[in-house]
Amino acid sequence: MKRIQCYLSALFIALAATNLAAQDLQMPTLEDLMPGGATYRSTDNLYGVQWWGDACIKPGIDSLIAINPQTGKETLLTTRKAINDALAKAQLGKLSQLYNIQTPWADRTQLLINLPGKYVVYDWATDTALARQEYPRDGVNRDYNLASNNVAYTIANNLYVNDRQVTREPEGVVCGQSVHRNEFGINKGTFWSPKGELLAFYRMDERMVTSYPLVDITARVGEVNRIRYPMAGMTSHQVAVGIYNPQTQATLYLNTGDPTDRYFTNISWAPDARSLYLIELNRDQNHAKLCQYSAETGELLATLFEETHPKYVEPLNPILFLPWDSRRFIYQSRRDGFNHLYLYDTTGKLLKQLTQGDWLVQDILGFNRTREEIIIASTEQSPLRSNLYKVNVRNGKRTLLGLTTGVHRAQLSPAGTYLIDNYSTPTIPRNIDLVETRNGKTLRNLFTARDPYAGLIMPASIAVGKINAADDTTDLWYRMVEPAGFDPTRKYPVIVYVYGGPHAQLINDTYYSGVRGWDLYMASRGYIVFALDNRGSSNRGREFENATFRRLGIEECKDQVRGVEYLKSLPYVDADRIGVHGWSFGGHMTTALMLRYPDLFKVGVAGGPVIDWAYYEVMYGERYMDTPQSNPDGYDATNLNKLAGNLRGHLLLIHDDHDDTCVPQHTLSFIKACVDARTYPDLFIYPGHKHNVAGRDRVHLYEKITRYFDDYLKHKP
Amino acid sequence: MKRIQCYLSALFIALAATNLAAQDLQMPTLEDLMPGGATYRSTDNLYGVQWWGDACIKPGIDSLIAINPQTGKETLLTTRKAINDALAKAQLGKLSQLYNIQTPWADRTQLLINLPGKYVVYDWATDTALARQEYPRDGVNRDYNLASNNVAYTIANNLYVNDRQVTREPEGVVCGQSVHRNEFGINKGTFWSPKGELLAFYRMDERMVTSYPLVDITARVGEVNRIRYPMAGMTSHQVAVGIYNPQTQATLYLNTGDPTDRYFTNISWAPDARSLYLIELNRDQNHAKLCQYSAETGELLATLFEETHPKYVEPLNPILFLPWDSRRFIYQSRRDGFNHLYLYDTTGKLLKQLTQGDWLVQDILGFNRTREEIIIASTEQSPLRSNLYKVNVRNGKRTLLGLTTGVHRAQLSPAGTYLIDNYSTPTIPRNIDLVETRNGKTLRNLFTARDPYAGLIMPASIAVGKINAADDTTDLWYRMVEPAGFDPTRKYPVIVYVYGGPHAQLINDTYYSGVRGWDLYMASRGYIVFALDNRGSSNRGREFENATFRRLGIEECKDQVRGVEYLKSLPYVDADRIGVHGWSFGGHMTTALMLRYPDLFKVGVAGGPVIDWAYYEVMYGERYMDTPQSNPDGYDATNLNKLAGNLRGHLLLIHDDHDDTCVPQHTLSFIKACVDARTYPDLFIYPGHKHNVAGRDRVHLYEKITRYFDDYLKHKP
Repeated sequence: MKRIQCYLSALFIALAATNLAAQDLQMPTLEDLMPGGATYRSTDNLYGVQWWGDACIKPGIDSLIAINPQTGKETLLTTRKAINDALAKAQLGKLSQLYNIQTPWADRTQLLINLPGKYVVYDWATDTALARQEYPRDGVNRDYNLASNNVAYTIANNLYVNDRQVTREPEGVVCGQSVHRNEFGINKGTFWSPKGELLAFYRMDERMVTSYPLVDITARVGEVNRIRYPMAGMTSHQVAVGIYNPQTQATLYLNTGDPTDRYFTNISWAPDARSLYLIELNRDQNHAKLCQYSAETGELLATLFEETHPKYVEPLNPILFLPWDSRRFIYQSRRDGFNHLYLYDTTGKLLKQLTQGDWLVQDILGFNRTREEIIIASTEQSPLRSNLYKVNVRNGKRTLLGLTTGVHRAQLSPAGTYLIDNYSTPTIPRNIDLVETRNGKTLRNLFTARDPYAGLIMPASIAVGKINAADDTTDLWYRMVEPAGFDPTRKYPVIVYVYGGPHAQLINDTYYSGVRGWDLYMASRGYIVFALDNRGSSNRGREFENATFRRLGIEECKDQVRGVEYLKSLPYVDADRIGVHGWSFGGHMTTALMLRYPDLFKVGVAGGPVIDWAYYEVMYGERYMDTPQSNPDGYDATNLNKLAGNLRGHLLLIHDDHDDTCVPQHTLSFIKACVDARTYPDLFIYPGHKHNVAGRDRVHLYEKITRYFDDYLKHKP
Repeated sequence: MKRIQCYLSALFIALAATNLAAQDLQMPTLEDLMPGGATYRSTDNLYGVQWWGDACIKPGIDSLIAINPQTGKETLLTTRKAINDALAKAQLGKLSQLYNIQTPWADRTQLLINLPGKYVVYDWATDTALARQEYPRDGVNRDYNLASNNVAYTIANNLYVNDRQVTREPEGVVCGQSVHRNEFGINKGTFWSPKGELLAFYRMDERMVTSYPLVDITARVGEVNRIRYPMAGMTSHQVAVGIYNPQTQATLYLNTGDPTDRYFTNISWAPDARSLYLIELNRDQNHAKLCQYSAETGELLATLFEETHPKYVEPLNPILFLPWDSRRFIYQSRRDGFNHLYLYDTTGKLLKQLTQGDWLVQDILGFNRTREEIIIASTEQSPLRSNLYKVNVRNGKRTLLGLTTGVHRAQLSPAGTYLIDNYSTPTIPRNIDLVETRNGKTLRNLFTARDPYAGLIMPASIAVGKINAADDTTDLWYRMVEPAGFDPTRKYPVIVYVYGGPHAQLINDTYYSGVRGWDLYMASRGYIVFALDNRGSSNRGREFENATFRRLGIEECKDQVRGVEYLKSLPYVDADRIGVHGWSFGGHMTTALMLRYPDLFKVGVAGGPVIDWAYYEVMYGERYMDTPQSNPDGYDATNLNKLAGNLRGHLLLIHDDHDDTCVPQHTLSFIKACVDARTYPDLFIYPGHKHNVAGRDRVHLYEKITRYFDDYLKHKP
């Protein structure tokens, strides 16, 4: 019944069929296949698994086990009952499971437990619990430093440390939270120095930014929730970086000069905490500088080096000091076309390029200081894969750790000796292995997930392969899901699922090649589901991504058309019944494909689409599009409102009324443009949701989308 | 090809067929049949026709003709060229046509011309023009008094008279404009005394009313337009009545006492301008008082009489003094079940009921003071008709003026001698006749409109008839439009067009029995289009209307189901393909019918629906529903959000994003309720429109609606 095919560079891999007889299989439901569904089949996992020195800790509901990676021997460290008895004795609360405990201290028999309003330490040797640090229960964005026992947190728009309020800013000035709309790799607003004696934090003044009104219709009388949302070309927020000293209670702001139209990204501390490194970027995002500021005076100490590109540079990773040499650090750059590691010294001198090749470094997991190795994840095996390697800093030698296939997410033990390697491959839903970094060998399997789709009717095949991009030179990866009971003599309707934007990749080497639950559902209902990672998507390097510069969506659409041309070449594809669906950038792509290629695409469902980049925010939008003032032709050519008159097929636009990423103005302005142009899109709105429909309502969303394709593509009149 | 059938109380009237051969007829388009369409077939009319004493004035683009009603003799009074030459000489401007001139002075050879910023008088005897009164061009809600030459107007929220600002109120207090959301017959905010020496005006304080946010997505960044919208059961606005004396520039406010939760309606002046009459109403709307206030002191002089009803009273007409006796006035009341005329004296004593019967007075056109007659329009011939009568005040004798059939809108000459009678009947698109009130005879025809649908394929028949209401006693009128090329051996899909709320009637004795352009369009495409005026609708009297009290929509739906049962009894109706469409109250009915009778109605399109009466405004909503606090069961039973789980058919909800009558919260809360209940309505929003889609976009709206019925009712899978 189930047959997984993997075309890898035209290589066909036939996978094992299940042993269940066809008649025993059930049709999958959206409740089975969509996150939020009542019977959702998520892939099993081990939760809370982590390192305690070189011992692997496996928490359960009731017990905490330590595993020796070399011998596999399991030792019961403690039980929930013992912990809860100690917590009760100290009147500190109660745990309902042990998945969230931490074992950060290799040299102590202690757990760190986060209970509401406090961090607690439990010692399993002495069977005692004590509160280590407290904070108000409404404190969010918490950042706890293990070394100093200081905790930073925010309440409303202000920053607090321990029991003190650090900032007293008015509404519109936000401290201690992520800035620049989480672009440039930023995802938090507080940065403890290594020993936790100083706290760097962001301060963002948004008072000059226009606000966008989102209406909450669940109030007695509809109410406005305003978000400060700087749109492309308009006045943006201003960011500063402060340093707070909990001991002196003094706050110092870096003297960065006028913050207008500047980005302050990738904060990292010098190992001695005497200076702070930032990667500063101009609004045009084509000129980055690595700057060092004094943590004592706030003054600029040095601009170590600069990086420019005619299109854009996008620093995403803070510099990382070698643990064994505080004068040297790793800098990540795409300057040779792919993200690689560069070794610099603190004078700003490039010592050497540590990695090189037509593949990219995706992550630095940590170091083995004894062997002077960096442990990374990279695409060296394939752009679809993420494999683990160690890189020797002295000689640059790379060694594979673990499997050559699959996508690996791993935790390195503190000394860099072992990895907890959590991975999947097209045929493995999830394995967790313990891997030794010394020789790259898998020591043992810790966990193997069951097939989440066992007992359900699955696609006839999931094929992955390559086709040529519209530039006739670049390879593009596609994935084709063939419906259950596939009969090559029939003609099938096809749904192209699309995203197409930067920083995303639909086809990869995870289970079923990264297929989505809805793809499986539609395949069970007789659709072919196709996806293609066009130019502009991730893991293929700089030129592949920035081919779309200043004309977002146009080259991407051309590549998707190549996918459709391939589909149309297949005898079992009904060329008159090709539909397209995507969300966000994929919503833009869906709408753009429907409007630019009305002969190819008959039905589309666009969720949370960008319609006019002028309505999108400054940081992301201007990186790829520059400003409406400096790139009027590009904004014009990509403004789908101007193409509203081209609509011929059935296009359903779906937007969330609280979408604070891609504001409802996109979809509503397109509706107006279509009314003006006398074309006839369809519309749906999910009240109360943000940029996508999450939770239980996700099943509703995909039922809605399914019905639309059923009505107009499958049963087309 | 075209055959109009009229079942009038089961009487069948066959009408003449057109002489055009079928092959010469064209399929109508929405552009032909919808207002706003590029080729819209509106019925011809004579514009600007009016009285100048007993001469009938017929303006044209270039000339102004006077017609002697007795002889029919036409006299050219003046030309546009002559007027424009005089206007140019006086540097007053220019007219592009003469349709908007007025001839208010029977004793003068003068026209009143309203040009931007000024009222101008042109004398065709002396061929001179002079400005009579000026006002700022941004002055709106203008109220010009002919006798005194005073002009009242508003700028923003304040009132002005001539060149002076009368009120200086802050935002949130509105003067000189209509109040109480245009309920109780109120449609303006200024009331000149008969000779124009005093101005009564409304002042409405809305500062305590919650505001509803409507988002304008056409701004660079979406902007909020807030409307003050008091929702049922919530704090309402407070109204006062002022009197301004332009000569002394003094303003006096009536001493009405605490205005909280009171309505001040139907303002009229005593003939001597020394007092002002108001009909005051409590918030519960079940207790009205006719009050007389001194225009000199503002104090209450008398409460002439009171009127109550256990359900509601709804005063809609100011008292009207007899021109020949300033101590007597006409008061209109539904106290005997139908709106009739009552003669009172100024002490509040009822002198006599002037009209009586199971029919109602719809309008008072004026008086003939010589014969002491009142000229009215009434439903005495039929609830579907509006005919003209004179009523003798002394003996109560009524005499029909003009035809017995049709719906008549007429202008009475100042002395009450003649009528310009503009009417249509099921077979006459529009006639304009001159009628003599002395004997009720038609003197001559002034104008006959062409058939607006000439050359277009029209329905096979338009039948009007009666069925029993769900109470098994009341008659209800229906209209059934049979599709072109009707073949009684086939099965047709049916669309029920519904309104169903108070103050409206779908079936009447106008051309094609009041059919809508879209009904004709759908009939041309093979649909039967049906309409039924259920209990609650207008022109049938008090009990017929208030049968729906405190449970709006429930009895109305039951009556509509009777209509569907009738349809299902017809051999040529496809009982599995019955759809429903309506707007506003009709949107509520559409949604309610789809939810309460999911077996009967398969497809619905609800425009601007009321979903929960708690989201509707105080004045209209509480009249029929009381408050959510005092009628929780009624609000619960009529809240369609509670029935969202019943949806089985296809229901498209359409709302305007600037709907300030029925705010978007209705539809959006229903969408949320359906998502919660896992049911699947469809949605469309018209950006920038208010409560309905007007202008050019109306064609888009009805194309959208048509496609929905075509997709799911006509070509149902």
